[in-house]
Amino acid sequence: MKGIIDVVALGGNAIIPAGGKGTINEQRKLTTTSMRQVADLIASGRRVILTHGNGPIVGNIMERNEAVKDRIPPMPLDVCGADSQGGIGYMIQQALRNELLARGIKSDVTTLVSQVVVSEDDDAFDSPTKPIGPFYSESEAKKLEAAKGWYMVNDADRGFRRVVPSPKPVEIVESDVILSLLEMGVIVVAVGGGGIPVVRRDGGFTGIEAVIDKDRAAAVLAGKVGAERLIILTNVTEVCVNFGRRDEEPLRNISLSDIRKLHGSGEFPAGSMGPKIESAIDFISNGGKEVIISHASMLLEACMGKAGTHILPDTDSRA
Amino acid sequence: MKGIIDVVALGGNAIIPAGGKGTINEQRKLTTTSMRQVADLIASGRRVILTHGNGPIVGNIMERNEAVKDRIPPMPLDVCGADSQGGIGYMIQQALRNELLARGIKSDVTTLVSQVVVSEDDDAFDSPTKPIGPFYSESEAKKLEAAKGWYMVNDADRGFRRVVPSPKPVEIVESDVILSLLEMGVIVVAVGGGGIPVVRRDGGFTGIEAVIDKDRAAAVLAGKVGAERLIILTNVTEVCVNFGRRDEEPLRNISLSDIRKLHGSGEFPAGSMGPKIESAIDFISNGGKEVIISHASMLLEACMGKAGTHILPDTDSRA
Repeated sequence: MKGIIDVVALGGNAIIPAGGKGTINEQRKLTTTSMRQVADLIASGRRVILTHGNGPIVGNIMERNEAVKDRIPPMPLDVCGADSQGGIGYMIQQALRNELLARGIKSDVTTLVSQVVVSEDDDAFDSPTKPIGPFYSESEAKKLEAAKGWYMVNDADRGFRRVVPSPKPVEIVESDVILSLLEMGVIVVAVGGGGIPVVRRDGGFTGIEAVIDKDRAAAVLAGKVGAERLIILTNVTEVCVNFGRRDEEPLRNISLSDIRKLHGSGEFPAGSMGPKIESAIDFISNGGKEVIISHASMLLEACMGKAGTHILPDTDSRA
Repeated sequence: MKGIIDVVALGGNAIIPAGGKGTINEQRKLTTTSMRQVADLIASGRRVILTHGNGPIVGNIMERNEAVKDRIPPMPLDVCGADSQGGIGYMIQQALRNELLARGIKSDVTTLVSQVVVSEDDDAFDSPTKPIGPFYSESEAKKLEAAKGWYMVNDADRGFRRVVPSPKPVEIVESDVILSLLEMGVIVVAVGGGGIPVVRRDGGFTGIEAVIDKDRAAAVLAGKVGAERLIILTNVTEVCVNFGRRDEEPLRNISLSDIRKLHGSGEFPAGSMGPKIESAIDFISNGGKEVIISHASMLLEACMGKAGTHILPDTDSRA
């Protein structure tokens, strides 16, 4: 099986419509729309690996979890993430297979439950920053801090919320299997929600309470499988400089050095575009040929160079 | 990759201890114990595919689902099943990989989110029989029947409960991928909870509200991959005739014809041993060499012929 490999990282807005009620029917419909574009990309000859955020979905799982915690023991974060990989992966693999069948393409599409290794020495464990799950009153929050050792923060006046560490992905436990499936022409959905975070302990792997940034995990995945392009789909058509200001300007093509300089000057905030830009820098620095950042609905236009921010190596080594 | 293939179908009691509180730590501990035996089986040279029930776990997912349905739209049954494949598969693949690593065996272990096709013409859709999810009061049950078209039954005086169809598995959507991974020496966890039930519609696949018996799905899987043995782990050491009576007698070795006769005489009730026996009959009739039914804790003894019920072809064709 030959062909250039693209890793496509789907943001939550490729799966759950922003203004909706959050029903599965809404998710199915949007996922089908998103997969139509992915099927077109595959029909054009690209080999695709998909990864995805688990944005509001794992939040729902945790909220359900907490709601009945007195009756049913709640699941830890790693298991919640694994559940979300199953449910989201199922929707994606079914929608994409159906879209491919409609085009007469008989590719297998499959979801792998994926663990991603982080280091116990990662600084993130000293300062949890990623808010997750439901909101609590101040008194509930204090109880949870005492009982479970959770870190709670006051989140934008909506109440108190748990924060967990967001350590950097180091390696993907199942990467050899992903590579083998890719070689066989199977379209793989993997490392959903940034992967299930695990640490190496006692010669094996153990789940840990953390959330890995999905774009950083996608960059590790893209590097590992030798992808040419890492395509990050989000809720903006292009990355902008001076974002939200009068002199806001979209970036179309930009070199590794130039994006590094902009990032160094604090252009991209840690809570939103920052991790995407750092993932792009990592991927290109390690030999990747192109990172595209664009809106979930613009996949094809972005791939054809008609939209999106395209981050390229300093010396263009493409043939 | 050579070697004889065993499909091991884990019952709920290989994952969740019967008398426990249902915490994830209890599940992890028991799963690790169960995987120790599976690792021994692999170390002895067998190639193993694992499948599993989702017994109380998917029930918990549904109960959490229903508890907050006014705030968060509930997931349909197929997505609940997919979630459970993710969470249970994760626990199994991690525990088994760790056990193999402890023995110096570097096999990959991976979970595939698996869809299983059923026929829309299956008689089961005319008479739903499988109870699932939480218990309701009579008035709640009546409301749900009217609002959602659910079938509700009065379950053993504990309240009203939803029943769904349990159609027969026809084929596994991801079976080619499972076969390929097996050929590469990867240990696959697949078709969890009987698989996510889907029907063929408009040239593609669509999820449907049903539950597929996990042993029937395991038999289809075992046939498809050309397994020599289908090993069904449950909560009895042997299948018994005259079960629960004074003249109860365990079956050790029994031929296809003889088990067929016993089944024909109504020896195995539809709600418990019946589907396991029918799965065994299907597998052996289609060329399988042996079905073992035993207790989850007796895997190794059963494989060595020291425990368990062994169902064999009429003419023993083993070398």
